Amino acid sequence: MPSTSLNERGNFQFSEAHENIAAEAVARAAEDLSQFPQTLQTTTVPSAQETSIMVADDKLPERFQWVLNAPEPPGLWCKLQNGITETIFPLKNKFQHLREHQVSKSLGNLFPILSWGKAYNIKMFRKDLLAGLTLASLCIPQSIGYATLAKLDPQYGLYTSVVPPFLYAILGTSREIAIGPVAVVSLLLSAMIQKIEDPVANPVAYTGLVITVTLFAGIFQAAFGAFRLGFLVDLLSHAAIVGFMAGAAIMIGLQQLKGLLGTTKFTNKTDIISVLAAVWRSVHDSWNPLNFILGCSFLSFILTTRFLGRKKQKLFWLSTIAPLTSVVLSTLIVFLTRADKHGVKIVKHIKSGLNPISVHQLQLNGPHTAEAAKIGLIVAVVALAEAIAVGRSFASVRGYHLDGNKEMVAMGVMNVAGSLTSCYVATGSFSRTAVNFSAGCETVVSNIVMAVTVIISLELFTRLLFYTPIAILASIILSALPGLIDLNEAYNIWKVDKLDFLACIGAFLGVLFASVEIGLLVAVGVSFVTVILSSIQPGTETLGRIPGTDIFVDVNQYPMAVEIPGILVTRLKCALLCFANSNCIKERILQLATGKQEVGDKGNAKGKTQLIVFDMSNLMNIDTTGLASLKELHNSLASEGIEFAVTNPRWQVIHKLRLANFVNSIGRRVFLTVGEAIDVCITAKMA
Amino acid sequence: MPSTSLNERGNFQFSEAHENIAAEAVARAAEDLSQFPQTLQTTTVPSAQETSIMVADDKLPERFQWVLNAPEPPGLWCKLQNGITETIFPLKNKFQHLREHQVSKSLGNLFPILSWGKAYNIKMFRKDLLAGLTLASLCIPQSIGYATLAKLDPQYGLYTSVVPPFLYAILGTSREIAIGPVAVVSLLLSAMIQKIEDPVANPVAYTGLVITVTLFAGIFQAAFGAFRLGFLVDLLSHAAIVGFMAGAAIMIGLQQLKGLLGTTKFTNKTDIISVLAAVWRSVHDSWNPLNFILGCSFLSFILTTRFLGRKKQKLFWLSTIAPLTSVVLSTLIVFLTRADKHGVKIVKHIKSGLNPISVHQLQLNGPHTAEAAKIGLIVAVVALAEAIAVGRSFASVRGYHLDGNKEMVAMGVMNVAGSLTSCYVATGSFSRTAVNFSAGCETVVSNIVMAVTVIISLELFTRLLFYTPIAILASIILSALPGLIDLNEAYNIWKVDKLDFLACIGAFLGVLFASVEIGLLVAVGVSFVTVILSSIQPGTETLGRIPGTDIFVDVNQYPMAVEIPGILVTRLKCALLCFANSNCIKERILQLATGKQEVGDKGNAKGKTQLIVFDMSNLMNIDTTGLASLKELHNSLASEGIEFAVTNPRWQVIHKLRLANFVNSIGRRVFLTVGEAIDVCITAKMA
Repeated sequence: MPSTSLNERGNFQFSEAHENIAAEAVARAAEDLSQFPQTLQTTTVPSAQETSIMVADDKLPERFQWVLNAPEPPGLWCKLQNGITETIFPLKNKFQHLREHQVSKSLGNLFPILSWGKAYNIKMFRKDLLAGLTLASLCIPQSIGYATLAKLDPQYGLYTSVVPPFLYAILGTSREIAIGPVAVVSLLLSAMIQKIEDPVANPVAYTGLVITVTLFAGIFQAAFGAFRLGFLVDLLSHAAIVGFMAGAAIMIGLQQLKGLLGTTKFTNKTDIISVLAAVWRSVHDSWNPLNFILGCSFLSFILTTRFLGRKKQKLFWLSTIAPLTSVVLSTLIVFLTRADKHGVKIVKHIKSGLNPISVHQLQLNGPHTAEAAKIGLIVAVVALAEAIAVGRSFASVRGYHLDGNKEMVAMGVMNVAGSLTSCYVATGSFSRTAVNFSAGCETVVSNIVMAVTVIISLELFTRLLFYTPIAILASIILSALPGLIDLNEAYNIWKVDKLDFLACIGAFLGVLFASVEIGLLVAVGVSFVTVILSSIQPGTETLGRIPGTDIFVDVNQYPMAVEIPGILVTRLKCALLCFANSNCIKERILQLATGKQEVGDKGNAKGKTQLIVFDMSNLMNIDTTGLASLKELHNSLASEGIEFAVTNPRWQVIHKLRLANFVNSIGRRVFLTVGEAIDVCITAKMA
Repeated sequence: MPSTSLNERGNFQFSEAHENIAAEAVARAAEDLSQFPQTLQTTTVPSAQETSIMVADDKLPERFQWVLNAPEPPGLWCKLQNGITETIFPLKNKFQHLREHQVSKSLGNLFPILSWGKAYNIKMFRKDLLAGLTLASLCIPQSIGYATLAKLDPQYGLYTSVVPPFLYAILGTSREIAIGPVAVVSLLLSAMIQKIEDPVANPVAYTGLVITVTLFAGIFQAAFGAFRLGFLVDLLSHAAIVGFMAGAAIMIGLQQLKGLLGTTKFTNKTDIISVLAAVWRSVHDSWNPLNFILGCSFLSFILTTRFLGRKKQKLFWLSTIAPLTSVVLSTLIVFLTRADKHGVKIVKHIKSGLNPISVHQLQLNGPHTAEAAKIGLIVAVVALAEAIAVGRSFASVRGYHLDGNKEMVAMGVMNVAGSLTSCYVATGSFSRTAVNFSAGCETVVSNIVMAVTVIISLELFTRLLFYTPIAILASIILSALPGLIDLNEAYNIWKVDKLDFLACIGAFLGVLFASVEIGLLVAVGVSFVTVILSSIQPGTETLGRIPGTDIFVDVNQYPMAVEIPGILVTRLKCALLCFANSNCIKERILQLATGKQEVGDKGNAKGKTQLIVFDMSNLMNIDTTGLASLKELHNSLASEGIEFAVTNPRWQVIHKLRLANFVNSIGRRVFLTVGEAIDVCITAKMA
C-alpha cells in the first residue's frame, strides 16, 4: 500500500535535488500511517467526496479527532476563582492540615523554631555561638553607621539589631540570614523621608516618621506573605536588583565622604551630581584632614584584613573583628589624644539602655500618614527583595527550600514589632549573612546570640563609644559597600541577556542620576517592556525534518534538518498571535509562501509552495485579531492555490479556533503532528 | 538487549496499576533506541563513571549533541541591525527590484493604477459607473452631515469627497474602499480641536486648525507607510476597534439630537453625561417639534428602505438613493411651505465652486502647532485603523492581498494633498465601502466617478441645498450609525476571548463616559496588560505519553495520554521564564515533585517522583532571574534525590543555558525529545 502512494506522490512538484530526501520522508510517514491499518485504507484510496478541501470526519485516523475533540478548558471565571481561592484563602489548606496531622506539626509549620529546635544540640550551639559573636562584632559598628546613614541617632541602629533578630529566629525559615539594619534601606529611608521632614531641624518628628514608615512596611510585608502576594517582590528582577544595589552602593559611598571629610554642610539630595557638587564645595571650603587621615587609615586596615581573610581561610577571623577593633582603637586614640578638640568629629552621647517603647511616636493621624504608607510600600518591597535574594541564594547553596510567603510574614511581624520598640526597618543583610555563613552558623540561633550581645552592649558599653570618631563609622560603611557592587554578575547578565542588562543599567543610572525611586521604576518598566517585546516580536522559523525521524525542528538551530520541497513547515518565534503582531506574521508567511522574498539562510531556489503547515505547538494564546488574521491568511493562500494545515494547537488555542469556527473554515485540517498533516494533505491533494 | 534493561527497570518504583503501560512505554523507548545500535551498547552497558550524575559527552547518541552544539543564534545587535535595515531602508529592496525587473513593473508597484489599468475594459467601467453614482448619491448628503459633525461649513465635506478619492484611485491598492469624510474621524476632530479653538466664536481659526491637523495626519500616515511603521496601527486591536466604533456611534447619535431637536444651545463635551444633560435641558427649554417630526419621518423612511433592500436584493437601489431622495424631498417641502420661518433650521448658504487652495490657512507657526501635531497623530492612527480594517475585510472576501504600507502611503499623500485644497481628514468609510461593494464596483474607478459627480454638484447644485433642513442631515447621519455598532462581533469576541472583550468594553465605556482619547488609551492599555498576563501567568501542565507513540501531550487536553509513574514530565503554560514568574514556577514544580500537593485532575496516588523532565519546547525566552531559578530548582531537586532533565530548548534558550553554564551544572542532561530524556536518565539511574 505505501508503495502505491509513493508512486502517486511523484506527481507532486519536487525539485530534483531533494527528491531522495523527500522520498525518504514520505516513506517514513507512510510507515507511521501503517500503524492505523483500518484508517490508512480509507485515506490512501480516497472516495469522490474527498477531492473537496473538506476532509470528512470519519475518515481521519483517531488521533486527528483527539485534537479536534479535546475537552473544554477551564473558563476564565473558573481560573479567576481558583486564583483568588489560592491567593486569598491559603488558610483553607492550613486548616485541612490541622485536621490531617497533629497539632504539633502544624505549630511547627507556623513557628519553624519548633521543628528544628528538637534536633538542636550542644555541638550546633557551639557553632552558632561563635558565628553569633562574630556577627555581633560586625553588627555593632555597622548598626551605628547605618543609623547615621538613615539620619537617626546611633542607638536606633543598635535597637534594630535587638528585636527583629529575636522575632525572626522564631518565625523565619532561613538558617543563615543575618537580620538588622542594612545600608540600602537606610539610604532609601533617609532619601525619601527627609523630603517630608528635616532630620536636622526637627529630629523628633523625623524619627517618628521613620518609625511610622517601619510600621507600614511591616504591615505590607506581612500582608504580602499572608495573601500570597509574593509575586509583587518578584517584579524586581535579578538584573534590576544587581543594578539597583550597585547604584545605591555608590550613592552611599559618596554620602560617607561627609563623615570622612568631617564637614558639616552637605546636600540632602541623593543624585550623583548634587552629591559631587557638595563634596567639591566641602573640599574647597571646610574640611578637616585629621578626620580624613583617621578614616582612610582604618579603612585600609579593614580592607587589608579582608583581603588577607579571603586569601587564607585561617585569617578569616581577623577580617571579621577588624571593624570592632578599628572602633576600639580609634576611640582609644581620640580619647588619649583628645583629637576631638582639634576638629575630629565624634559620636558623642549614645543613649544607653534597652529599646524603649515607641508607640507614642507613631504618626497615624498626622498630615504625612499617606506619604508614610507610600514610602512604607516601597521600602517593604526593597527590603523583602534584598532579604529573599540573600536567603534564597544561601538556601540554594545548602540545598533546602525557603518558603517565600512564610519569610514575608516573618519579616512583616518583626518590623511591626520593631516599630513599637524604637526600631527602624530591618531586613537580611548581604554582607553580614555571608559572614554568618562563613563563620559556620548552623541555625538562626546565631541571630539570637548576636541580639543578646547587642543588648549587653546597649546596657554596658554605649558610654565607651562617646569618643568614637564619625570617620570610623564612615569607613566601616565604605568597607561594606564593595560587596553590594557585583561587577561579575553584571558581566554575566550582559553576556547572557542583553535586554536584562538594560534593566540592570537602567536601575543603576536611575539611582545615580535621578533618585532611588526612579531607579526602581526604570528597572520595573524596562523589565516589562522586555516581556512585551519577547512576547510579540513577529517572526517565523522554518522547520525541517531530522533525517530518519518524524521530528521537525528549526533548520537554523539544527543545520542537519531537511526542508521538504514544496511544503513550508513554519512556526512562530513568539508565543502570542495577537493584535500587535498578527498582521505582520500573516504578511511574512504570505511572502514565504508566494516566494516573493527569499528569507532565511537556507533560502535557495525552491519549487512553488503547495502546502503550508503551521506548527502551533508553541502558541500560548491567540486573540480575536489573531484569529481574523489567520482567516485572512487562509483565504489569501486558498486564492493562490496553496493548502493550509495547522498542527498541535494547545488547549486554549484549539478551543478558540473551534469557537471562532476557524477549524471548519480550513476544512478541519488540524493535526497532532507535522508528519500527519503532511501525509493527509498530500494524499488529499493527489486524489 | 532491551529485555535485560526491562528486567533491570523492574527495580524502578512503579505503582502496580500502571506497570503494564509503563512497560509498554519503556519497550517503545527501547525500540527507538535500537535505531542507534552503536550508541545503545554504551548506554545500556554503562561504565563505572556513568554512575555519576554527569553523562559523558561521547556516550550520548548523536542527536543529543545536536541540541547542545547548535550554532550560535544571531545576537541582539545583529537582530537590531536587521530590524532597522528592514524598517528604515525598505527602498533597498525596491532598488533591487528595479534592477531585476523592468521599470514598468516598478512603476506599477508605485502606482497600482498602472497595473490594473491595462486590463480595464468597458464592461468593468459600466459596473464602476453604476457603483460610483450610487456612492455619490449616498456620499453627498453624508459629506455635508459629517462636515457639520466636524463643526465645519457644509462645503468642506464635499471638498473632502473630491481630492482624496482621486489621489487614492492612483495610489491605493484596495478595489472596494470608498474614500471621503467619515463619522468617527469627524467626531474625533471636533472633540479634540474645539478644546483649543471655539468653532462658533472663531470659525476661521478653527477651520485653519482642522486643515493643519489634516496636514499632520497625512504626514504621519505617509511616514508610517514609508518607514514600515504599520505596526503602530496594529496597536488598536480588532476588539478595541469594535468597542471604540460602537462608543463613537452612540456619541455621534446623541450629538445628532441637537439637529433633530432644532436647538441652538448644546454642549461641546463628548461624554455621555454632559450630552444627556444638554439634551434634557433642550427638551425642557427650547425645541422645535417641526424639526423633530421632519427628521424622524425621513429617518424612518431611510431605515424602512434599508430594511427592504436587505430583504430583497432587487430593492437594494431603493435603499441607496433614499438619503438623496430624502434631501431633495425635504428641501422641496421646506421651500414650498417656507417652514424655515416656523422654526425649521436649514443649511442656508453652501459656497459653490471647486476646492479652493488652503495653503494660507495652515497654522504651522501658530501657538497650537504642537497640539495640532499631537491631534494629527491620534487622528492618523484612528483613520488608518478604520480604513485598513475596512480594506482588509473586503480584500479577504475577494481573496486578494492588501499591502498595508502602500495603503498608508496612499492615505497619507491624499490627506496631505487634501490639506492644501481645503479638505479635512478623509479615510475609508465602513458604510459607503459596503454600498460600493454591494453596488458591484470592480475597481477604484468608482471613487473617481463619485468624485466627478461631487465636482458637478459643487459647481451646479449647491444653491439648491439652501432650504435643506438640518434635521435631515442629522437623520442621514443617524441612519448610518447602526453599521458602526457590531453587536454580533462583540458577542463573538465575548465568546472567543474574555480578555479581548475587556479591551472592547473598555474602549466602549471610555469613549462614552470620558472622551475618545481616553477610550483609545484604555483599549491599548488593556490590550497590553492582556499580553503581559498571557506571557507571564505561571502554571505548568503535566504531559503524558499517547499510548503506542513517542508523543507527549498535556494530560488534560488529551485524556487518553498516560503519565509514566515515577516520572514527571512537565511543560510551562507560558512562554517566558522570567523575573515575574520564575519563582512561582519553581515552587510549583517543587511541590509537584515532592508530592506535597496533589495538583491536576489526574492527581491520584503516585509513587515518589524520581525524575523530572522539563519540556522547554514552548519556552521562547528566559532571563537571568529565570536561569537562577532553574539552578535553584535543580539544586533543590538534587538534594531530594530527584533527577532533572531538560528537553527541546529553542535556539535562544539553549544558547542562554550554555552561556549561563546551566547545561554543565545539570550534567548535560539536555535532550531533543522527552522519550530520549527518559531512556537515558533511567538507564543512568539503574547503572
